[in-house]
Amino acid sequence: MQQLLQEVIKNNKKWTQEGKVATYIPELGKANPEHLGVTIMDLDGEVYAEGDCDVPFTIQSISKTVSLMAALLDNGEDLVFSRVGMEPTGDPFNSIIKLETLKSKPLNPMINAGAIAVASLIKGENISDRFDRVLGLFKKVTNNQSIVLNEDVYLSEKATGNRNRALAHFMKDFGIIDGEVEEVVDLYFRLCSINVTSIDIANIGAVLANNGVHPMTGEKIVSRHYSKIVKTLMTTCGMYDESGSFAVRVGIPAKSGVGGGIMAVVPGRMGIGAFGPSLDEKGNSIAGIKILEELSKKLGLSIF
Amino acid sequence: MQQLLQEVIKNNKKWTQEGKVATYIPELGKANPEHLGVTIMDLDGEVYAEGDCDVPFTIQSISKTVSLMAALLDNGEDLVFSRVGMEPTGDPFNSIIKLETLKSKPLNPMINAGAIAVASLIKGENISDRFDRVLGLFKKVTNNQSIVLNEDVYLSEKATGNRNRALAHFMKDFGIIDGEVEEVVDLYFRLCSINVTSIDIANIGAVLANNGVHPMTGEKIVSRHYSKIVKTLMTTCGMYDESGSFAVRVGIPAKSGVGGGIMAVVPGRMGIGAFGPSLDEKGNSIAGIKILEELSKKLGLSIF
Amino acid sequence: MQQLLQEVIKNNKKWTQEGKVATYIPELGKANPEHLGVTIMDLDGEVYAEGDCDVPFTIQSISKTVSLMAALLDNGEDLVFSRVGMEPTGDPFNSIIKLETLKSKPLNPMINAGAIAVASLIKGENISDRFDRVLGLFKKVTNNQSIVLNEDVYLSEKATGNRNRALAHFMKDFGIIDGEVEEVVDLYFRLCSINVTSIDIANIGAVLANNGVHPMTGEKIVSRHYSKIVKTLMTTCGMYDESGSFAVRVGIPAKSGVGGGIMAVVPGRMGIGAFGPSLDEKGNSIAGIKILEELSKKLGLSIF
Amino acid sequence: MQQLLQEVIKNNKKWTQEGKVATYIPELGKANPEHLGVTIMDLDGEVYAEGDCDVPFTIQSISKTVSLMAALLDNGEDLVFSRVGMEPTGDPFNSIIKLETLKSKPLNPMINAGAIAVASLIKGENISDRFDRVLGLFKKVTNNQSIVLNEDVYLSEKATGNRNRALAHFMKDFGIIDGEVEEVVDLYFRLCSINVTSIDIANIGAVLANNGVHPMTGEKIVSRHYSKIVKTLMTTCGMYDESGSFAVRVGIPAKSGVGGGIMAVVPGRMGIGAFGPSLDEKGNSIAGIKILEELSKKLGLSIF
Repeated sequence: MQQLLQEVIKNNKKWTQEGKVATYIPELGKANPEHLGVTIMDLDGEVYAEGDCDVPFTIQSISKTVSLMAALLDNGEDLVFSRVGMEPTGDPFNSIIKLETLKSKPLNPMINAGAIAVASLIKGENISDRFDRVLGLFKKVTNNQSIVLNEDVYLSEKATGNRNRALAHFMKDFGIIDGEVEEVVDLYFRLCSINVTSIDIANIGAVLANNGVHPMTGEKIVSRHYSKIVKTLMTTCGMYDESGSFAVRVGIPAKSGVGGGIMAVVPGRMGIGAFGPSLDEKGNSIAGIKILEELSKKLGLSIF
Repeated sequence: MQQLLQEVIKNNKKWTQEGKVATYIPELGKANPEHLGVTIMDLDGEVYAEGDCDVPFTIQSISKTVSLMAALLDNGEDLVFSRVGMEPTGDPFNSIIKLETLKSKPLNPMINAGAIAVASLIKGENISDRFDRVLGLFKKVTNNQSIVLNEDVYLSEKATGNRNRALAHFMKDFGIIDGEVEEVVDLYFRLCSINVTSIDIANIGAVLANNGVHPMTGEKIVSRHYSKIVKTLMTTCGMYDESGSFAVRVGIPAKSGVGGGIMAVVPGRMGIGAFGPSLDEKGNSIAGIKILEELSKKLGLSIF
Repeated sequence: MQQLLQEVIKNNKKWTQEGKVATYIPELGKANPEHLGVTIMDLDGEVYAEGDCDVPFTIQSISKTVSLMAALLDNGEDLVFSRVGMEPTGDPFNSIIKLETLKSKPLNPMINAGAIAVASLIKGENISDRFDRVLGLFKKVTNNQSIVLNEDVYLSEKATGNRNRALAHFMKDFGIIDGEVEEVVDLYFRLCSINVTSIDIANIGAVLANNGVHPMTGEKIVSRHYSKIVKTLMTTCGMYDESGSFAVRVGIPAKSGVGGGIMAVVPGRMGIGAFGPSLDEKGNSIAGIKILEELSKKLGLSIF
Repeated sequence: MQQLLQEVIKNNKKWTQEGKVATYIPELGKANPEHLGVTIMDLDGEVYAEGDCDVPFTIQSISKTVSLMAALLDNGEDLVFSRVGMEPTGDPFNSIIKLETLKSKPLNPMINAGAIAVASLIKGENISDRFDRVLGLFKKVTNNQSIVLNEDVYLSEKATGNRNRALAHFMKDFGIIDGEVEEVVDLYFRLCSINVTSIDIANIGAVLANNGVHPMTGEKIVSRHYSKIVKTLMTTCGMYDESGSFAVRVGIPAKSGVGGGIMAVVPGRMGIGAFGPSLDEKGNSIAGIKILEELSKKLGLSIF
């Protein structure tokens, strides 16, 4: 396995020359496009890691999976899915159109509107407390007590996140989110700005692959049913507007973030964390997808 | 003329029983649906007023015409129309869709997005100062020094105006508005919450009918060209999604507000102010439109 | 007047170098972009014409005005406006989106969907008969018995008009049009392919300016009310997505066609026909608009 | 297994009282809403069937899976996916909006626009020949030589399918489909009007579950890769606007049709055919979904 990972890093390093790092959040523009790392954790808790597997990056949209777990734990399935749907959308991740045309909740928790609605459901005394509670869940699923916020990226998102504020105010107007909009988006910005490594996200994938139980600690973090919900939504909506072709080419539940990470789950087998900040036009790690494609073929990972 | 106004009030009083007062801004729900008033000011400054012509109501969207004058005076035509278009839209007044699909400035200054973009262009040290400057213009065009803000309506709008905040944040994201979003919408909410009577808005109409010069004071408030811009946009976009059928039935430039007012202009002849807070489905004063229709027929006012 | 027309032709000839002739209907691509002509007919029936005023071109969308008159004469106002609206739209002339989102009739008779719905209402034994009946109306409003179909353009439109077929089938599905779709669009294609000159369309404008009575023949062709409907819809929707800025800059009811014509109406004063096949991005004659703008300024034609 | 099927039929019979049969194609309105049948075929070719398992119904949208196989066999993956995408859509199955806003190919082969684009790619001398070729493929995947067209339903679809004609003409205009529109939609209508039973569609599911090889005949009908493409698209887009929640609740690739059928695939394990013509609001068999949900829970079928 270790040798296989060496191989896939070598075979796909060239793809880091294609695409480019995200710049719409200015702080993300400082990433090194040549970084490439991959980590696999199997259900015995065995870890295989190669390349820039321990370089930290911000989790960005991958946090939508952990936020969803947190909101489900706090509120139960019925309440959560009264505020956000389960359906894929053909619109961009930051689109506002369907909120107006459907006059209804956002289509799923993997687009920004949906993730903001999910964040609004996380309980706590105040924003700090709410963030700390989700961060606690992050520490459990990554089995890493030293997970922290990247303050610079957080402030950069907060300074520029007006599109997300627009989504939140629109939903506030429709009664989809309660509470102060600025607080909700602040929590959302923080959740996107958590620093992780490919090892951390392989841990998250392994928890989901193992139906909610961490393979190393044995702790049951979420139920089998909640795990299934998250994996299903990752499959249909996890890779932005590329979810469909990724499902055909790779065939495993995955969630990407514009920080360059992809967290992938092979149900009953393993979690995978890929990291490469050079992105394709859809906002997915270009070399990360290639690595997952090669692994899927060589290890027969597709669920279809 | 006075007799004609008595007649039209009498003939159309029954329409106040139809429709209903606006409630989406809670404070507006307190209006008396049976109120009905009308005022005409001709270009000699002669005033004819009947019914509840001196009952105060908040100007709401009619303020979009005066804000546009203020922004034009502050910035000139080129700058203003680099931030807002001149084209009608088939979408509702508070729609956000075209901002996303066109990736461009709002279509015209008579829809909320456009009026917020216009408000963002009004100059001043701070929000108070900006508001006071537009209020000064209001006093001139209405020839009424006692025009004031309705504090209760303003606070009610501010408390519930999340849809407008969504529009503003979306435009901020696209670089269409500068400055603090909360300040811009605060100014917008205040401009909508100015108390006027049908006499006041007949004055505004008369200024526009007289190509920018107030018929009583003789003061040239805006240029002939700016007057023409405002009248044109009123014709194509002034009556919400009912602008087209109003143009066919009545045929004069007009701007309505959900407070129940309609400010209408007969170029070269007169300004008309109608007031009746019971609204049709499109948000226009139901008896107000009927009065204008009857006046247009009896006095031959249509510009077409 | 004649001298003024010479002047405006000379002043604006340079604009024929900008823009380009329509090519989406292949046959239109053969037009000479340097052509420029203008004709005015006043309400005494006096005609002033300059430049390429007698060069034939296909009427294209200008026919929407005459079709609307024909449909109104055949069916009355209530039936016609049960199948098509009176409201402007911010969407392109050939857009289908609002048919789906509003689940309703097309917004107005000046966009393709609306004009097809209007064409479907014209009575007759068969398509030939229906076409001949409208052609008869064309001959009356242009006071020109030799108006004919341009067979080549008609066949070119018929061969390529799939977008219009899509609009028609969509409306058929919603019950907005009755009858055979292919027949309705065939009639529509023919109506767009009638050959006219700037003199002919100045005649149409003069009839509308004169409230439905032809200034030369004295024949009452349509009622004052129907004239008003047509003029109003020309003002709000006649110049494609440029209707609003045209209204500000020129300020008279007008309808353009991609054949290069613009038919304009100065209520109570004159009809104007402009012709220049080089089009701007919106599909309007680039030099034609400039000529109308200059005439409007010099003669004070704006209705606002 | 047989006993389990008896149970699930009994447990879910009550759901046939909810929902209603499709009526937008008039002929479909004649279905008996109380029908309920289910068939499982495992990869040894063993068949378990219960209830109205041999009642014929028209395949409707389930045919989109077999058409896609046929188009892939005729043209290869690259050509097919140059005309249709792989991405889910949040819009209704018959929506035309994204064709206009994206100015591009339809999002996936499971919505009407996509399936019509796919049908246009099927080769043959003429429509009869093209239909016969796909029918031949149907006979192989169902292992049933007596599969035939339901002439009444076909004629009913042909008489009322104007929305589909609109989609086809729109795509023709954009160059997405070649050939005569009426021929393409005719082929599409025929493909939707093939009569099948739950046994037949269980066979199709079993072929896909077995990576393209029919479990009984051993014939390799399509490649493993094409099977995977079809299964993936079924997962993300197969159950109309309910695909996401179906994936969470049931978790297996499935495609439904408004005739009341659902064809489902458990990769590596079995094909399932469910039939119950009473539909929920999204157009899916209401009792059919319940049966699949119960089977998924009891047999642990979810792929997630």
